[in-house]
Amino acid sequence: MKILIILGSESDKPIADKAIKILDEFEMPYDLRIASAHRTPQKLEKLVKESDANLFIAIAGLAAALPGAIASFTTKPVIGVPVNVKLDGLDALLAITQMPPGIPVASVGIDRGDNAAILAIEILAVKDPSLTKKLEDYRTKMRDKVEKSDEKVRK
Amino acid sequence: MKILIILGSESDKPIADKAIKILDEFEMPYDLRIASAHRTPQKLEKLVKESDANLFIAIAGLAAALPGAIASFTTKPVIGVPVNVKLDGLDALLAITQMPPGIPVASVGIDRGDNAAILAIEILAVKDPSLTKKLEDYRTKMRDKVEKSDEKVRK
Amino acid sequence: MKILIILGSESDKPIADKAIKILDEFEMPYDLRIASAHRTPQKLEKLVKESDANLFIAIAGLAAALPGAIASFTTKPVIGVPVNVKLDGLDALLAITQMPPGIPVASVGIDRGDNAAILAIEILAVKDPSLTKKLEDYRTKMRDKVEKSDEKVRK
Amino acid sequence: MKILIILGSESDKPIADKAIKILDEFEMPYDLRIASAHRTPQKLEKLVKESDANLFIAIAGLAAALPGAIASFTTKPVIGVPVNVKLDGLDALLAITQMPPGIPVASVGIDRGDNAAILAIEILAVKDPSLTKKLEDYRTKMRDKVEKSDEKVRK
Amino acid sequence: MKILIILGSESDKPIADKAIKILDEFEMPYDLRIASAHRTPQKLEKLVKESDANLFIAIAGLAAALPGAIASFTTKPVIGVPVNVKLDGLDALLAITQMPPGIPVASVGIDRGDNAAILAIEILAVKDPSLTKKLEDYRTKMRDKVEKSDEKVRK
Amino acid sequence: MKILIILGSESDKPIADKAIKILDEFEMPYDLRIASAHRTPQKLEKLVKESDANLFIAIAGLAAALPGAIASFTTKPVIGVPVNVKLDGLDALLAITQMPPGIPVASVGIDRGDNAAILAIEILAVKDPSLTKKLEDYRTKMRDKVEKSDEKVRK
Amino acid sequence: MKILIILGSESDKPIADKAIKILDEFEMPYDLRIASAHRTPQKLEKLVKESDANLFIAIAGLAAALPGAIASFTTKPVIGVPVNVKLDGLDALLAITQMPPGIPVASVGIDRGDNAAILAIEILAVKDPSLTKKLEDYRTKMRDKVEKSDEKVRK
Amino acid sequence: MKILIILGSESDKPIADKAIKILDEFEMPYDLRIASAHRTPQKLEKLVKESDANLFIAIAGLAAALPGAIASFTTKPVIGVPVNVKLDGLDALLAITQMPPGIPVASVGIDRGDNAAILAIEILAVKDPSLTKKLEDYRTKMRDKVEKSDEKVRK
Repeated sequence: MKILIILGSESDKPIADKAIKILDEFEMPYDLRIASAHRTPQKLEKLVKESDANLFIAIAGLAAALPGAIASFTTKPVIGVPVNVKLDGLDALLAITQMPPGIPVASVGIDRGDNAAILAIEILAVKDPSLTKKLEDYRTKMRDKVEKSDEKVRK
Repeated sequence: MKILIILGSESDKPIADKAIKILDEFEMPYDLRIASAHRTPQKLEKLVKESDANLFIAIAGLAAALPGAIASFTTKPVIGVPVNVKLDGLDALLAITQMPPGIPVASVGIDRGDNAAILAIEILAVKDPSLTKKLEDYRTKMRDKVEKSDEKVRK
Repeated sequence: MKILIILGSESDKPIADKAIKILDEFEMPYDLRIASAHRTPQKLEKLVKESDANLFIAIAGLAAALPGAIASFTTKPVIGVPVNVKLDGLDALLAITQMPPGIPVASVGIDRGDNAAILAIEILAVKDPSLTKKLEDYRTKMRDKVEKSDEKVRK
Repeated sequence: MKILIILGSESDKPIADKAIKILDEFEMPYDLRIASAHRTPQKLEKLVKESDANLFIAIAGLAAALPGAIASFTTKPVIGVPVNVKLDGLDALLAITQMPPGIPVASVGIDRGDNAAILAIEILAVKDPSLTKKLEDYRTKMRDKVEKSDEKVRK
Repeated sequence: MKILIILGSESDKPIADKAIKILDEFEMPYDLRIASAHRTPQKLEKLVKESDANLFIAIAGLAAALPGAIASFTTKPVIGVPVNVKLDGLDALLAITQMPPGIPVASVGIDRGDNAAILAIEILAVKDPSLTKKLEDYRTKMRDKVEKSDEKVRK
Repeated sequence: MKILIILGSESDKPIADKAIKILDEFEMPYDLRIASAHRTPQKLEKLVKESDANLFIAIAGLAAALPGAIASFTTKPVIGVPVNVKLDGLDALLAITQMPPGIPVASVGIDRGDNAAILAIEILAVKDPSLTKKLEDYRTKMRDKVEKSDEKVRK
Repeated sequence: MKILIILGSESDKPIADKAIKILDEFEMPYDLRIASAHRTPQKLEKLVKESDANLFIAIAGLAAALPGAIASFTTKPVIGVPVNVKLDGLDALLAITQMPPGIPVASVGIDRGDNAAILAIEILAVKDPSLTKKLEDYRTKMRDKVEKSDEKVRK
Repeated sequence: MKILIILGSESDKPIADKAIKILDEFEMPYDLRIASAHRTPQKLEKLVKESDANLFIAIAGLAAALPGAIASFTTKPVIGVPVNVKLDGLDALLAITQMPPGIPVASVGIDRGDNAAILAIEILAVKDPSLTKKLEDYRTKMRDKVEKSDEKVRK
């Protein structure tokens, strides 16, 4: 199983890095590519159609057409990450969520590359118990981290 | 494979109906339940934890805590549908997308029960080629419908 | 000289009609087509690339990727009309205006099919004095209409 | 009488500190805990149900489900403080105020940990004249401070 | 114990009725008055200062200064209900929540007169076990209602 | 003729300074005071009612009740200046503009203390030709400044 | 003394009628004219420059350039009324308030023709005690109306 | 063929520089001028009416009346660039896009001086094949740049 992360622009790399950090932690294979829905539509179409990835993570700001454009070329799941470039990222959030009927994109929160990666793993875990186990371990680690913070602030 | 649709309130039923129409068209089994994150938290926890569904579709308006609450009880994918009750649905959209790091929800657009269903099928299709075939057929039908509209408006 | 109006969906027809009314008044030839950036990306690409139109008017609501997608396939001017489907049309307005550097779209106001048509004629008039004359006549008619309203409300 | 302050994340501590400063000034006992609605729902439920506090102050940003989750476990008053993490805190403000009928949260302004503490004391003062006296003294001090500022800027 | 509900204008009565319905159900005594922060500031001041109520529910739309004005005259808890008159009620919501440090208002959601009443009872229940019992019964009834809805929609 | 500038808080002083700079340039007498609608309502009422000023400039952020509170105590013109403290100043702008019927406030733009001062002078100039002359001179100076900028950037 | 009301379009007449109702009640002379900043800029300039009115009320929706355009032609006070045509009137509110330094417009609330008229009278009353008397009588009438509403809803 | 860039204020120069950089790259002649719709309306009218430019690029922030004012004086195409001064530039974006029927402005995105220049060239290219060739070369360069970024991030 494999994930393809596509960035609309090199400037979105820091948000991709949040996703990569999670994927590396889960030892989940992925490719990272840059392709713009507006500047390189043919490249994007080719990349999506020839990809053997099981799902796509698309990271983009502003009008953020990338996730929707990918979704127009495939019936595989597409996760969109709106990036805050202008307007606190509200433009990108609306561009990614407000898709027309028939072509969904799965949006996570503004700048949440990390959650895109976890959602991707949750999707791939649907029939892979070993991944479910890893997700549960990750949750346990999060709980432990909350416990530590809790102990730290308790009077 | 099975989908569990949970509504925060009976008033969200029309949005669920959009999802059901799609699921029926794909002959995809599902359960439909009502459980409120705020009014029946225990029932919700039990429902989620005991469910044998592969993923959840959560439909809610206003503060729309339902999708996130479900996601807190499971590592299975949770698709959230923000419902327009007040503020054109912007409150629900933000409540569903702006999840903290670690617990993602996959948001579709405001009132887009239909897209939630298609996204659910796309997720279940990751390892089910027969579903991919059905999704492609659905796309073809959409294309045909656009073609018909196009012919109709051409001068 | 010719204009190609493309709608993302048949439901956008009433906004296109505002444009058509103006174009007919100016006896400006146009074609009207329906093609969806998300549902029929290939059809859209073909339509744009094979078109002999001098510019495009793209009318779309929600994530409103249509104008940007057209702009990705051509260097001809693309005028975008955001349609109010949800959120008072703010989602479509941002999707159409907030294009990345390099691929502009010329946005008019929400539901302003009429202004898209006038802008199209202004663009085509750049080297066509007869069109400039018609535009000036149209302005005169608008001024006369304001004068009539003014006389009507004066005490 | 006692107050339980719950943070959704350690990063919300500076907003809690504003509350603590007020509570210390009023010599009002409180506990400070970290528990996440999404990452540690069981811990949160246990914390709320076993607490002997008379009311809760919940501080959270983003989707800010914490105050509502607490309110789902108790009929004691819950004061919510939306924290500005993204979108100027508008996401958290809507998530905290737009609760469904039946399960209220008392929201104060964005980042207003101080007002949450004063509101908590006002609530506890309903049948405690000594607290009312302290609140009136605090108001007098505020008035004096305004007077001093006024004298300073008068020409 | 008693609650004073103040409306900024008679047009806010339907939102007050939602509160009254709840208060009647809990057999909680209340008074209902109209006084405008802007049109009758002296009347409002007198009403608040001479009131023997334990807390105030203030219902207002637009600039919605009423809850804050009441809070400026008393240290008793003030619950504000933003009413949707223009801008989907966002103006009133911000006017009620964004109070300056030192003078809190407890805001509930837009048009949520019902939640204001429940919050009022929760506050008065802090030292009144009989009220807590009633609140728990009310929750049970809500849960039962959700159960009934759930049974109705289950396939 | 005299102007009374009232600040809701000392932190609004930099915005008042923009007004003062203009008033000094026009040699227009003014007083500068601090009084809070919420923290010192009696002081504010006394200040307004006993003032011999011809109009008021009220500068405030957040819920920004100050201009409206002043307007509730006088029929003299009240100019409101919304200050950006949170939410880019949108909360203050709405609180100042969205006044109920019968009690107007004259709002200028966010942080526009300068425009409040010019508007005040325009109002006082209604029957004072010498002030009109000064306003016209000020406009001429502005035009000259634009001319100088224009010459500077022309190629 | 005289007021000139200018509408950007005949469709803004219902908002002007709110102003006229107030002006008639105060027996304040006024003229009502239609002139568009965008469609009839010369007419507007002439109208403003040749007017013997003491101040202007400008009523406009959408981009709402009218009040600012009038202000560019005169140093007399200009009151702007944003009209809700699209986006709940937020576009018009921002266009009228967010004027650049040097050229103020006095904005009232969305669709508040009534408040524009009262503000106009307040401005003209600065040196006219008889008008002040009328304004105070109007306030008394408003207070009486609130009293009557209050008596009606009191239990 | 020539383009006239007009700035509302010298502070908008950095956004104009983005346009100039593009125009220089295309060896497209232009003039750069400063003229304010509000501070120098006559100068603006004269500048527009006497200009031999084929189209206008108008750059302005806040109420951003400049592009619409230019459009009121000419039937040549006017491209508007909203500048972020306050409110993330949303005020300027709405002021530029939400023009009334009959007088269009072609808006690009917030701070997108670069896209305004490219759009201007696209418009002038309508009957100039040599410009179309340059635009296609520019696209090729953009594609090459995306390719280089893509190679850089690929693992």
